[in-house]
Amino acid sequence: MVTRFIKRKSRKTGMSPGTMVHVGERKVDQVTIAVIDYDTENIDSMVLPTIEKAFPFKDSLTITWLNITGLHDVKLLEKLGKKYQIHPLVLEDILNTDQRPKVEIFENYIFVVLKMLSFDTQKQEIEHEQISLIVGNNYVITFQEREGDVLNPIRERLKNPLGRLRKNGADYLAYTIIDVIVDHYFILLEKLGEKIETLEENVIEKPNQSSVKELQLLKRELIFLRRSVWPLRELISGLSRDETTLISSYTSPYLRDVYDHTIQVIDTVETFRDMVSGILDIYLSSLSNKMNEVMKVLTIIATIFIPLSFIAGVYGMNFEFMPELKWPWGYPTVWGIMLTALVSMLIYFKRKKWF
Amino acid sequence: MVTRFIKRKSRKTGMSPGTMVHVGERKVDQVTIAVIDYDTENIDSMVLPTIEKAFPFKDSLTITWLNITGLHDVKLLEKLGKKYQIHPLVLEDILNTDQRPKVEIFENYIFVVLKMLSFDTQKQEIEHEQISLIVGNNYVITFQEREGDVLNPIRERLKNPLGRLRKNGADYLAYTIIDVIVDHYFILLEKLGEKIETLEENVIEKPNQSSVKELQLLKRELIFLRRSVWPLRELISGLSRDETTLISSYTSPYLRDVYDHTIQVIDTVETFRDMVSGILDIYLSSLSNKMNEVMKVLTIIATIFIPLSFIAGVYGMNFEFMPELKWPWGYPTVWGIMLTALVSMLIYFKRKKWF
Amino acid sequence: MVTRFIKRKSRKTGMSPGTMVHVGERKVDQVTIAVIDYDTENIDSMVLPTIEKAFPFKDSLTITWLNITGLHDVKLLEKLGKKYQIHPLVLEDILNTDQRPKVEIFENYIFVVLKMLSFDTQKQEIEHEQISLIVGNNYVITFQEREGDVLNPIRERLKNPLGRLRKNGADYLAYTIIDVIVDHYFILLEKLGEKIETLEENVIEKPNQSSVKELQLLKRELIFLRRSVWPLRELISGLSRDETTLISSYTSPYLRDVYDHTIQVIDTVETFRDMVSGILDIYLSSLSNKMNEVMKVLTIIATIFIPLSFIAGVYGMNFEFMPELKWPWGYPTVWGIMLTALVSMLIYFKRKKWF
Amino acid sequence: MVTRFIKRKSRKTGMSPGTMVHVGERKVDQVTIAVIDYDTENIDSMVLPTIEKAFPFKDSLTITWLNITGLHDVKLLEKLGKKYQIHPLVLEDILNTDQRPKVEIFENYIFVVLKMLSFDTQKQEIEHEQISLIVGNNYVITFQEREGDVLNPIRERLKNPLGRLRKNGADYLAYTIIDVIVDHYFILLEKLGEKIETLEENVIEKPNQSSVKELQLLKRELIFLRRSVWPLRELISGLSRDETTLISSYTSPYLRDVYDHTIQVIDTVETFRDMVSGILDIYLSSLSNKMNEVMKVLTIIATIFIPLSFIAGVYGMNFEFMPELKWPWGYPTVWGIMLTALVSMLIYFKRKKWF
Amino acid sequence: MVTRFIKRKSRKTGMSPGTMVHVGERKVDQVTIAVIDYDTENIDSMVLPTIEKAFPFKDSLTITWLNITGLHDVKLLEKLGKKYQIHPLVLEDILNTDQRPKVEIFENYIFVVLKMLSFDTQKQEIEHEQISLIVGNNYVITFQEREGDVLNPIRERLKNPLGRLRKNGADYLAYTIIDVIVDHYFILLEKLGEKIETLEENVIEKPNQSSVKELQLLKRELIFLRRSVWPLRELISGLSRDETTLISSYTSPYLRDVYDHTIQVIDTVETFRDMVSGILDIYLSSLSNKMNEVMKVLTIIATIFIPLSFIAGVYGMNFEFMPELKWPWGYPTVWGIMLTALVSMLIYFKRKKWF
Repeated sequence: MVTRFIKRKSRKTGMSPGTMVHVGERKVDQVTIAVIDYDTENIDSMVLPTIEKAFPFKDSLTITWLNITGLHDVKLLEKLGKKYQIHPLVLEDILNTDQRPKVEIFENYIFVVLKMLSFDTQKQEIEHEQISLIVGNNYVITFQEREGDVLNPIRERLKNPLGRLRKNGADYLAYTIIDVIVDHYFILLEKLGEKIETLEENVIEKPNQSSVKELQLLKRELIFLRRSVWPLRELISGLSRDETTLISSYTSPYLRDVYDHTIQVIDTVETFRDMVSGILDIYLSSLSNKMNEVMKVLTIIATIFIPLSFIAGVYGMNFEFMPELKWPWGYPTVWGIMLTALVSMLIYFKRKKWF
Repeated sequence: MVTRFIKRKSRKTGMSPGTMVHVGERKVDQVTIAVIDYDTENIDSMVLPTIEKAFPFKDSLTITWLNITGLHDVKLLEKLGKKYQIHPLVLEDILNTDQRPKVEIFENYIFVVLKMLSFDTQKQEIEHEQISLIVGNNYVITFQEREGDVLNPIRERLKNPLGRLRKNGADYLAYTIIDVIVDHYFILLEKLGEKIETLEENVIEKPNQSSVKELQLLKRELIFLRRSVWPLRELISGLSRDETTLISSYTSPYLRDVYDHTIQVIDTVETFRDMVSGILDIYLSSLSNKMNEVMKVLTIIATIFIPLSFIAGVYGMNFEFMPELKWPWGYPTVWGIMLTALVSMLIYFKRKKWF
Repeated sequence: MVTRFIKRKSRKTGMSPGTMVHVGERKVDQVTIAVIDYDTENIDSMVLPTIEKAFPFKDSLTITWLNITGLHDVKLLEKLGKKYQIHPLVLEDILNTDQRPKVEIFENYIFVVLKMLSFDTQKQEIEHEQISLIVGNNYVITFQEREGDVLNPIRERLKNPLGRLRKNGADYLAYTIIDVIVDHYFILLEKLGEKIETLEENVIEKPNQSSVKELQLLKRELIFLRRSVWPLRELISGLSRDETTLISSYTSPYLRDVYDHTIQVIDTVETFRDMVSGILDIYLSSLSNKMNEVMKVLTIIATIFIPLSFIAGVYGMNFEFMPELKWPWGYPTVWGIMLTALVSMLIYFKRKKWF
Repeated sequence: MVTRFIKRKSRKTGMSPGTMVHVGERKVDQVTIAVIDYDTENIDSMVLPTIEKAFPFKDSLTITWLNITGLHDVKLLEKLGKKYQIHPLVLEDILNTDQRPKVEIFENYIFVVLKMLSFDTQKQEIEHEQISLIVGNNYVITFQEREGDVLNPIRERLKNPLGRLRKNGADYLAYTIIDVIVDHYFILLEKLGEKIETLEENVIEKPNQSSVKELQLLKRELIFLRRSVWPLRELISGLSRDETTLISSYTSPYLRDVYDHTIQVIDTVETFRDMVSGILDIYLSSLSNKMNEVMKVLTIIATIFIPLSFIAGVYGMNFEFMPELKWPWGYPTVWGIMLTALVSMLIYFKRKKWF
Repeated sequence: MVTRFIKRKSRKTGMSPGTMVHVGERKVDQVTIAVIDYDTENIDSMVLPTIEKAFPFKDSLTITWLNITGLHDVKLLEKLGKKYQIHPLVLEDILNTDQRPKVEIFENYIFVVLKMLSFDTQKQEIEHEQISLIVGNNYVITFQEREGDVLNPIRERLKNPLGRLRKNGADYLAYTIIDVIVDHYFILLEKLGEKIETLEENVIEKPNQSSVKELQLLKRELIFLRRSVWPLRELISGLSRDETTLISSYTSPYLRDVYDHTIQVIDTVETFRDMVSGILDIYLSSLSNKMNEVMKVLTIIATIFIPLSFIAGVYGMNFEFMPELKWPWGYPTVWGIMLTALVSMLIYFKRKKWF
């Protein structure tokens, strides 16, 4: 669908900026507030009934990961925004799931918008979900559109008291979340890669017009993917720059590592684009080639038999005075002429390498 | 029309720079001077008979939004320019509606030129109107070519005494105006997106040459749109830079938000361009494909029947000495030969997967 | 002609740099030295017999515009160069009319090379003339290849004692000259735009191979134009930079205005290039389309009549034992078969939407 | 295989960063630890049984080259990493053979990842092997996936006590290794160049669809090669910059020399890409050309004989009242008409230059 | 030949950097050492038997131009390198004639590599020769692969005691040499331009497949040329920068002049590339066009005569009961029907504007 590419929906047009409206599909029924609170020694994991219960964690010395699933509860966000002093535009961006990936650095927190991408094998389309992060001094707040199992490995790793996660601050937690999401893109890339290979084999074996439509769809998915991953580069290099004290020097090389991965993702997307346009070239040239073959068959048959038919036609005329018709050798002679013509034609085509 | 792309009309060529001539269609009969004057407590909205009545607002402590609709009254602008100390080239630019979007920062005011874009469903063309802003310390002057309802929501929002507009200065008002205009582009993008989808469906279902012309027109509209939105990027990042004290630090993040939107608009325009050229590919390959099919039908029919006709022609000859003609099984034998030829041809084509 | 693109002619190769040779066509018979000398109060306009008569103006307090038409008098330039201390390479560049537009800033003067472009409707080619400017403290020297009326409006404006030209220095005069030349490009663009439109209509209405040649010529003109206008951008932004005290702060915003115009010219040239390649697409697809139509006609006719002819051919055979020939209903039956075949073919083609 | 382009394999997704897992084929059975320890006077070369035996070299005054072949022994790397204080992410990168070429500068060492590329004539594919370097103050550690003879010339050169290698430090050794690897690319380029030439000759002599597939494969190899060599540019210029004291000023010009070579490699890859797309153009135009020739033969034959057959058909009609049939000159007259038609057709085609 | 594009030959691979081996064809038998020694008053020109004779000039006060023709005498270069303290990599680069044009600035001298390009009309190929310059305080050493007359004009100009060459230093001499070489490119460009024009005329007049091959060859020459001239830009701007005291402020504007020329060369090469791809477009569209014409002829003839033949075939059937055959007006009636069909077909084609 084309409209996927128009990120800001017209229905928000004309509203006051900072107006908090959830733009996007409502993907879960219930908003879930999950908290994981930890330091090197203890870890505590719970689901909170109201957002207010989360507030005391803000000023604790432990690291707090607040994960909010479901974005339609505008009230909840307002309260949260007030407590954590989040800029109204940031709150608006969290609710509007048509954001471009970006990072914004404020004095007390960093705001990151990311896209979780996966391939929906049913619709043959890339599915996307927006994940926003608020990274503060000792807390990370994540906003998801729906329940997902992508972040689960992090929850598992947190349980390990000797893991690096437990020994480091909120910035390292934030890095881990970003890393897991970017890593997830490679799964998507593999699926797209397989699709491209299948398509290529189809085009080589039995090219038909439906392949072109599939190619166009794939091209569109790649355009979509490209738009989603290009900003990542800038995003992560934005985080690595020394503009904020919220990212420790310990975490910096890890961010550089994620940066390398995003470069690889971008490289691969570009390669896929090249491949897809290469498949179109194969298709078009194979069409031309087929046409050539079809025309050769027609031309060989027509060129041989049309003149022969003409000769037969001549002796089918009913003139009273056609001396050849009375010759006893007339009929075999005509056969001789026709066979000679046939053979010389075949030699001609053979020489032209038409078959 | 090609001439839409040539912005500076030749009839101005050779005139002295700063010569104030209205270049563009005259779109309204009457110049209207509307003033909204407000501070946090009071708001006053009126239509002024003469421009001189607007002058006292310049030095008041309140925020003044002076909206001038209709650009053909050169005298009025001259008086305004004198009072507000506006550079003659700025006045010329306001009158000449063929400007590229741009920002120019002067000591006492900022000059912004924007394009209001909408899709004229009748002419199937993008319509454009120029909006210029003069943003001063405590005033915003807007110049429109004609009455429009795009800025109305702002007038409504101004009435709300608790709204952010009322609490902030002229720079925030200017931001709001720019934001509303950029937001409006998304409506245009949706309409263009729908057009592209319709066109694509047409090309897939029944491709014909008229689609190519439509594609070219669409491509041209996209070129036009691109030229109108690309400068926006630079424009808004120009505003955000610290070159002026007229933009407060409060307004800065809001400008960054508009900047994100313009990036989205530009992204979408580029995506549309890719799509349109993809549709051309579909069209061209479907032409080739159709040709292939047509040629196959011709070749199959001709290849089968031309040799058969030849055989029939042979036995239509009138030679006196054709022994076969007298054989009692001659006729059925010929039929046998012909049917054998037919069947082997069909098998041949079947193997070549021609049908 | 291709050679138009090779700017430095081979006949200068191997000469010492700074060797003053006039490279280019000799376009006027007589070198004319015209002087306009003015300040806010007086203006004096005269044609000088020798270049030496111009020298006293150099050190006067008034602004002097020295216009030299015709470049073949190398001696004259040498004397001028000596008096005004102009670098030998600058003199060489003035004489060599194959320069790229450029600006060079020296301590005492600024050297600007520009191209005057116009469309020669006869040759259907862009004509170019080189105009060089030496801008000093209180003088502007212009060098033209031939008499032209492009700069006349400036002479008129100079007569107005209240005009900005009279009130400002040599830098403003130089700006005015550049502005008038750049403005002139819009006339050229309009003519090219009309040509593109005509060509497009032709291609849509009756495409033939001659259009392709015209398209190529047009494309070449656009390449030529592009090469002439691209350097302008850098040129004018080079002038605006603070490298020299010869450009006053008063003139700076005016240069920014010319800069905007050159951006518009470049934008339009790029748009034209897009359009021209779009027309080629239309042409190629309409060729394919026509071929398709031609082939359909052939295929329909051949597919219908070749099998029918075969049937007729069968009953034209002269076998003695063909029982059908003796049946009284044989002839009408064959007609029936043939009509049935015809009708079913037509239905088949109808279903395939071939007509 | 498409999957070659997706560098980070999905099976690592979700793991903790810095997790040391060997990603890539296991190419050797046994991990080999080879040490060459030298100064200007002595050189010592040995194979160590355990990694611990290598540790004393770290703090010796001699230069030590530690070469580790085989990457699957994770334990060994962990120990090495601990001793040499290597960042866990660096260790992870060494094990993961899907890295992009890159350089990372740490306080005590420089980490370089390179690709050894060679052309596998059997698979007709570019083979790649990852080589990582850790360059310290007085040691270089290299990690290879398998035994290779590319670095052997360096071992030979080291034996020469008067060679530059012996007189310089670890940075010069590292430079030599990089230089040898980059030089090796030229062998690959030559092989690819030959392949392109062969393919071009094939396409010119007997173009067929299999060439298109080969072209696509070649294009893909070039895309792969491009991705492998582009980062080199940045890598080596990164090394040359003054960010580290590990690279002496003596070695700097040598790095500039390698830089020149990488530019040449990149240039050549780009040229090859241009060539390959040029071959596709040749192929497509030769298809069109062949089609034209085939059609001409068909058209000439059909245009000549179809009208002639018609004439013969007319006089094959059995009407009782056809006066021509009874004329004594009827038959020769018809032959005359037919020959005239034939000759005029031939003249027509001759004039159209169809043969 | 493709291998021309692979600059560093594989036979050098694996050698120690700075190893002096002459890579390239040996183009002269004898190495010639020519010296021109001059100051403002005296000039001395001689051919030296051994390189040692040139050494005293190094420390003289005069300017010395040492020209060495032939690069295969490695010993000679080694001695020279020692005396003039030239970096071993520079000596290697001088001997290896596969260098990219470049400049390297050392403390005591500047090293410049240039390509002398000319068009070999016999092989229809661009020939290249490497010229290296060592520019010192008071000497210039040039290395040529073979005798050439390109630098002769400089020798002539040196004889003029009043010329700028004699009055200026070694930097001006170096500039002059570079200028002469760059100027020489314009001759090459003119020849290529003529070739392009001839090719274009051929393609328009009688397009055939051999033109495509010629186009590809030309395209390749342009790629080669492009690679040779692009680095010039950087090279000369590198010289102009203030990194060295070896270039006097007097020579700087002259270098800027050469810079302008290289820009012109690059511009022209890009234009030529555009033109060549334009010619391919003409060729392809003219192929399609021809095909269309051929098909039209076939279709017109077949569409007219196949139905007519069918009618004739019908009345050639031998049924006993065909009443029409006995009608006295049967034969003329059939003629009437056939003529009507013919005329209506012709009208149909006329309307479709097929002829």
